[in-house]
Amino acid sequence: MRHKGGVFTSRYQKPGAEPATLLPREGQGAALSMIRYDANRFEEREFPDAEALFERLREVQGKEVCWINVEGLGDVELLRKLGVHFGLHPLALEDVTMAVQRPKVEEYDDHLFVVMQLPHGDGEFKVKFEQVSLFFGKTFLITIQENPRYDIFEAVRARLRSNRGYGRTRGHDYLAYGLLDAVVDHFLPVLEPLGEAIEKLEDALLKRPSQKCMKELHDLKRALLLLRRNAWPLREVVNALVRNESGLVTRETRIFLRDCYDHSIQIMDVIESYRDLSTSMMDIYLSSLGVRTNEIMRVLTVVSTIFIPLTFIVGVYGMNFKDMPELTWRYGYPACLLVMLALAMGMLAYFRSKRWL
Amino acid sequence: MRHKGGVFTSRYQKPGAEPATLLPREGQGAALSMIRYDANRFEEREFPDAEALFERLREVQGKEVCWINVEGLGDVELLRKLGVHFGLHPLALEDVTMAVQRPKVEEYDDHLFVVMQLPHGDGEFKVKFEQVSLFFGKTFLITIQENPRYDIFEAVRARLRSNRGYGRTRGHDYLAYGLLDAVVDHFLPVLEPLGEAIEKLEDALLKRPSQKCMKELHDLKRALLLLRRNAWPLREVVNALVRNESGLVTRETRIFLRDCYDHSIQIMDVIESYRDLSTSMMDIYLSSLGVRTNEIMRVLTVVSTIFIPLTFIVGVYGMNFKDMPELTWRYGYPACLLVMLALAMGMLAYFRSKRWL
Amino acid sequence: MRHKGGVFTSRYQKPGAEPATLLPREGQGAALSMIRYDANRFEEREFPDAEALFERLREVQGKEVCWINVEGLGDVELLRKLGVHFGLHPLALEDVTMAVQRPKVEEYDDHLFVVMQLPHGDGEFKVKFEQVSLFFGKTFLITIQENPRYDIFEAVRARLRSNRGYGRTRGHDYLAYGLLDAVVDHFLPVLEPLGEAIEKLEDALLKRPSQKCMKELHDLKRALLLLRRNAWPLREVVNALVRNESGLVTRETRIFLRDCYDHSIQIMDVIESYRDLSTSMMDIYLSSLGVRTNEIMRVLTVVSTIFIPLTFIVGVYGMNFKDMPELTWRYGYPACLLVMLALAMGMLAYFRSKRWL
Amino acid sequence: MRHKGGVFTSRYQKPGAEPATLLPREGQGAALSMIRYDANRFEEREFPDAEALFERLREVQGKEVCWINVEGLGDVELLRKLGVHFGLHPLALEDVTMAVQRPKVEEYDDHLFVVMQLPHGDGEFKVKFEQVSLFFGKTFLITIQENPRYDIFEAVRARLRSNRGYGRTRGHDYLAYGLLDAVVDHFLPVLEPLGEAIEKLEDALLKRPSQKCMKELHDLKRALLLLRRNAWPLREVVNALVRNESGLVTRETRIFLRDCYDHSIQIMDVIESYRDLSTSMMDIYLSSLGVRTNEIMRVLTVVSTIFIPLTFIVGVYGMNFKDMPELTWRYGYPACLLVMLALAMGMLAYFRSKRWL
Amino acid sequence: MRHKGGVFTSRYQKPGAEPATLLPREGQGAALSMIRYDANRFEEREFPDAEALFERLREVQGKEVCWINVEGLGDVELLRKLGVHFGLHPLALEDVTMAVQRPKVEEYDDHLFVVMQLPHGDGEFKVKFEQVSLFFGKTFLITIQENPRYDIFEAVRARLRSNRGYGRTRGHDYLAYGLLDAVVDHFLPVLEPLGEAIEKLEDALLKRPSQKCMKELHDLKRALLLLRRNAWPLREVVNALVRNESGLVTRETRIFLRDCYDHSIQIMDVIESYRDLSTSMMDIYLSSLGVRTNEIMRVLTVVSTIFIPLTFIVGVYGMNFKDMPELTWRYGYPACLLVMLALAMGMLAYFRSKRWL
Repeated sequence: MRHKGGVFTSRYQKPGAEPATLLPREGQGAALSMIRYDANRFEEREFPDAEALFERLREVQGKEVCWINVEGLGDVELLRKLGVHFGLHPLALEDVTMAVQRPKVEEYDDHLFVVMQLPHGDGEFKVKFEQVSLFFGKTFLITIQENPRYDIFEAVRARLRSNRGYGRTRGHDYLAYGLLDAVVDHFLPVLEPLGEAIEKLEDALLKRPSQKCMKELHDLKRALLLLRRNAWPLREVVNALVRNESGLVTRETRIFLRDCYDHSIQIMDVIESYRDLSTSMMDIYLSSLGVRTNEIMRVLTVVSTIFIPLTFIVGVYGMNFKDMPELTWRYGYPACLLVMLALAMGMLAYFRSKRWL
Repeated sequence: MRHKGGVFTSRYQKPGAEPATLLPREGQGAALSMIRYDANRFEEREFPDAEALFERLREVQGKEVCWINVEGLGDVELLRKLGVHFGLHPLALEDVTMAVQRPKVEEYDDHLFVVMQLPHGDGEFKVKFEQVSLFFGKTFLITIQENPRYDIFEAVRARLRSNRGYGRTRGHDYLAYGLLDAVVDHFLPVLEPLGEAIEKLEDALLKRPSQKCMKELHDLKRALLLLRRNAWPLREVVNALVRNESGLVTRETRIFLRDCYDHSIQIMDVIESYRDLSTSMMDIYLSSLGVRTNEIMRVLTVVSTIFIPLTFIVGVYGMNFKDMPELTWRYGYPACLLVMLALAMGMLAYFRSKRWL
Repeated sequence: MRHKGGVFTSRYQKPGAEPATLLPREGQGAALSMIRYDANRFEEREFPDAEALFERLREVQGKEVCWINVEGLGDVELLRKLGVHFGLHPLALEDVTMAVQRPKVEEYDDHLFVVMQLPHGDGEFKVKFEQVSLFFGKTFLITIQENPRYDIFEAVRARLRSNRGYGRTRGHDYLAYGLLDAVVDHFLPVLEPLGEAIEKLEDALLKRPSQKCMKELHDLKRALLLLRRNAWPLREVVNALVRNESGLVTRETRIFLRDCYDHSIQIMDVIESYRDLSTSMMDIYLSSLGVRTNEIMRVLTVVSTIFIPLTFIVGVYGMNFKDMPELTWRYGYPACLLVMLALAMGMLAYFRSKRWL
Repeated sequence: MRHKGGVFTSRYQKPGAEPATLLPREGQGAALSMIRYDANRFEEREFPDAEALFERLREVQGKEVCWINVEGLGDVELLRKLGVHFGLHPLALEDVTMAVQRPKVEEYDDHLFVVMQLPHGDGEFKVKFEQVSLFFGKTFLITIQENPRYDIFEAVRARLRSNRGYGRTRGHDYLAYGLLDAVVDHFLPVLEPLGEAIEKLEDALLKRPSQKCMKELHDLKRALLLLRRNAWPLREVVNALVRNESGLVTRETRIFLRDCYDHSIQIMDVIESYRDLSTSMMDIYLSSLGVRTNEIMRVLTVVSTIFIPLTFIVGVYGMNFKDMPELTWRYGYPACLLVMLALAMGMLAYFRSKRWL
Repeated sequence: MRHKGGVFTSRYQKPGAEPATLLPREGQGAALSMIRYDANRFEEREFPDAEALFERLREVQGKEVCWINVEGLGDVELLRKLGVHFGLHPLALEDVTMAVQRPKVEEYDDHLFVVMQLPHGDGEFKVKFEQVSLFFGKTFLITIQENPRYDIFEAVRARLRSNRGYGRTRGHDYLAYGLLDAVVDHFLPVLEPLGEAIEKLEDALLKRPSQKCMKELHDLKRALLLLRRNAWPLREVVNALVRNESGLVTRETRIFLRDCYDHSIQIMDVIESYRDLSTSMMDIYLSSLGVRTNEIMRVLTVVSTIFIPLTFIVGVYGMNFKDMPELTWRYGYPACLLVMLALAMGMLAYFRSKRWL
């Protein structure tokens, strides 16, 4: 059973269903590739199926770092075979296929399982998330991406190919750090346009408040809610790895992870600041509405309070009483006009003194 | 003493009453059944009363997993007999019959007592809760459901009957996990329609704000309040079981419970997100009202400020002064009409420049 | 120095005054009584003064549970004598007479001192508190009630007299639990009418919002504030007793106290839910006001914008220009009426299209 | 460099300045006095300068409790000499002269340093603070008050002089407790008038909301903010002393400090309650404004919607069309008046049905 | 890749980039200087490049305190050489050049790395931050300032030159404390004008509320947000140094750091108070708008409800019915005027009774 609708899409199993069931993602394939390297050698290959990969691994199993990447969740059988081969826990594989997991680290006997949610912005206030899963043991590192469209690890791969930096001299844990760091840093290009949009929105709210702004503000809040919901546990994930005591993370890599942890805190800081600002922007909007109401009312009141009394006066001299002496006075009409002019002037002066004009 | 009224229904004992008193739920019966199984055997039976059950147990007491289920709280005597037979604590039985217990785990000498609240939605913003109690020791697992109408454990039973998965090869703790998992996962189908309703409501608030929306929003908040009040301690319940050291929970089951704990955190996440959104929706509503007020005022102001001065002018020439030269001018009337037209045009231009039109 | 005024009444000592000063409550007496029992015997007596009590105690001092009850704070001398006889700490006695103490447990060498605040509701949004103090050692239990009017321990006493349950077979700690439980459970009958009042208020806010509702809402908040201020530390009191290691609380009673702790948490839950609801109700009120303003404005705007232009037209034909051809047309008058009717119809259609009617 | 302005006055050193610099308070002197006592003897003296004090101390140095009091921060040299004589830390002395210190306890090798802020209310919503510093070792207790105007320790001194209670039989720690208790209890007479003012303000907000109320509410919030900022750390100060393990605080005094800790918690409770109430009062004000707007609008709308249509009708019969048959009818005029009356009555009935009247 | 825009400027690396990359700040140079001293000697010099510095260090390496200062981030090569010479971690150097680091302490094998953000105010509600980095080991202390314009350490240098206080008799840790203290104390001159601006703004909000105030309030909130975001971790930095156990911080300096910690708490206190006030100011603004709306509406309503009925009356006697007896009455006209006067007076009295005038 599955459901798609709105932002809080959640794929979930029927209550009471067998745990650790793997559901294939329909309409998707799954591409399998491997990168093996040490300081001197570098091999990069694609495989049609799991058997071809295992055969290659049997041929070459050495001390090289071995990174297996799966793109797309369409082939449940492939995942099951990888699970059996590398001894991955069935519940972890279920989390991989569900792809709505909260970021977390699970520690199993001889490997760690890391789930992360990678944000993708679309320039407006929409944010989508792609799940990236990572199994990582003494002799292998497996990454599984939900969506084959985006290639977020290409920069890391390019770095390994070119053998720049000291990347290729280190072990699986350093590679895992590199991938984790790529995911964490991916929040920044998503947050950057949000920051710019916030400034535009602030401007619009002060100058041209409209219900459209309100809609955008709500979308912004929703986006920040989603980002926060995934960035907060990501922070915990990195922290858990820094303090991990399974022996899979070396002391040297720990220093790099600490740096990555700093980044994740900074991301949380920015998100929280944006949330604070968005609350303050709501206040701006409400007050802008109030100011506008005031302005409209002021115009109405000024016009009405000037002309309603005058209209009364002209009404008086429109009455048909027989005996109205003013009507026959020599300068009755101009006098009447003058009185009304004086009244209007007085009113205007009064409004000016009240700063309504 | 008992009381039913509103959402926060609470059955409670008179202050100072004897503790551990069992009160029967009026107008209800209680159905007693048992399932016994191991990897090879499977037995499922219903019993008319406790004695029949105990007799059957005396005949077959072996190493099989033995799950006793009671549906309905109408038969206090049955509960008391089960309590005596299995050594359940009287206070725990009182909690079972009160059926308004906060989710919790109590650890007794040789068994654990788990209380949970199972949510039932009705498609709108109403949520009801049914108490599910669970006693679980080395040789037995007893579940007691408040409401015989819903059969939430049917999926688990079906799985056991069909012998799919590795369910039947494991002990009482794995069965307890399965039942707990069913309860936790039951929040999702309740939250899903809420999520859809929230989106509809957001739309309505932006386009057609009405006091009816406000009512729905309040109902939504109330539903989220109730869900949160029961989901939060449920999370603690699962966590307590993960960290339980009584020896009743095996290491293997612990991994599954950890997965269940993740689910409960995700449920809390969704609830909290909905709460945040509902706060933001309140803001939308208030601002929509403000925008509407502005719009209405604008129409009033535009019409008034255009016609009130014109009405004044026509009033002037309706006066009955003897000596009003304009009245006798050749083109007095058309000139007057033209002046008023020009005035109205000027006003309209002014309002357009202010973006009021 | 003393002061009574408003809700936050506080009796307090002049800053820098001698600590442990006992101030008598004016206009009050103090009734002294004792209950002694074990599984077989039961004795209940009143005493005119402390000496009579001490004499009786000298005669019979055995292993029975001995519960001494003082009702009213008028007789400071009596308290002082009890203090000397049973070795109670002077600061504890000061707390008893001040009667504005935050609920707490103090552990002294050979006895525990428990202060609680018992709520009394008056059906509306007023809540009052009465202080109940409890000293409890190996050989005695002393309760001191501030207000002799209410007899909250009568239910416990009746239970002891009738020898129902296993109450009389247990020690001082179980009796203390029973009294504590009576106080904790006393919050429920106070909260129940509040819950009903909240529902009535919600209804009123949606249908007939008025400043009177606002006043009631504020009173409700104040009542919840007071209840929370006394329920929160009460929860800590019970928890402290559960975890108490003085040897005065037996393991068996601890299980009962844990149950009492659950109740206190549930009470906090209800109070917090009510607080959340009351915040949401404030929003309902504000939005109801906004909706009402809109409605009023709509009526004004519809009537004004229909009739103001029409009034202008009739004003035009009320002008006294010599040369107004329309006035002399054959069907001038009916044509004018028809034009105005058409205008009014058009306006109405426009408002209907805007859903203002 | 120093600065005085607004509520958040802060005397501060230029960034990068030498630490532990003592700045004299201009325009102030400093009065030096000493009280020495044990159970039998009591000596109270004033000294012109530090040397005279030290000389007296050399003469009599015994086991008596020795309390040295300095009033006013004008004489930096005096403080420096005391510092050298009793081995006080220069940073502590800097804190004394800055007199804007957050309440805290600092533990040095052989003495404790306590800073507190003593509130002074002025009956309205203004609160000022005076710093009271307290050095306290095995053989001395030094108090330094910022402001010689107020004599908050007079009550303690009077108690010592009269030898009431067991004050004079105890050591420096008990005296320190007494002084601390005097400071803590000093919050109550400041909070009391605030409580009364809150009730008056609530009344005013419901009945006669005005911008003046708003100003007062803001001042109230500011006062509570200041009180909270100084009461919160004070609570921690007392707690730190209760748990202090330097050997300077005896077990017996600890019980009294625990009592003082309870008072500080109660003070925090009251402050927090007032803060909650003030938030709720803001809501009352905003809703009162809304109610008032509604009321005004209702009057306007009722009057306008009744008279605008009537004015239209009379305008119709004021038109000058040649051929208006109604004008010549026998009962045209009374009929017209009757129609208008009926219309007005209908309107009034409609408004009454809408509860606008 | 770099980005500058708005307040939340963040320089960041492309996701997946090589860690520990140093990016030069374009258009900047870097000035290198050194101060060496002990109690007797003092040397202050500038160097053209790193080699000259290292040569000088080789000549004189003794037990003196050696403080190396770099102003400006333009010369990445210089930083790299210093890094190699003193064994600084590449990730720390990356943090230095990024210059958007959250304040933190990193502990490496033989040195500590401290990053701080120094605030600069511009008198209005704009706050900018400059990163100050500090490496500090047994034999060296290196400070790196982002912006060569401001010389915040000049006061410390002047103190060292003049040999006032005991500054020159202490080690690297005391110097580090001095610099840290200068940064922490730098928040006060930034907060001071904010405090004054808040008071002005409060005044303006109560008396002349305008959308400009709203803009300023939002800017204020933004400034406080930024200050808080950098002051909060700064507090943690100082605390981490107080509790540091690397042996680099002596027990004596720890006491001074504790003082610095107090300052940082006080700064947080002030910031939080300002935040609380700014929230309350938002309420003032909204209520001011409401009050203004009320006032405007009151004027409109009073004028309208007085003149609209009068206009109706004069309209009645402007009708052209043949048979209107009042028109021919002797005192018809004055009577009509008197009736209207009475009506107007009655209205005014009514409004006065409602306190609308």
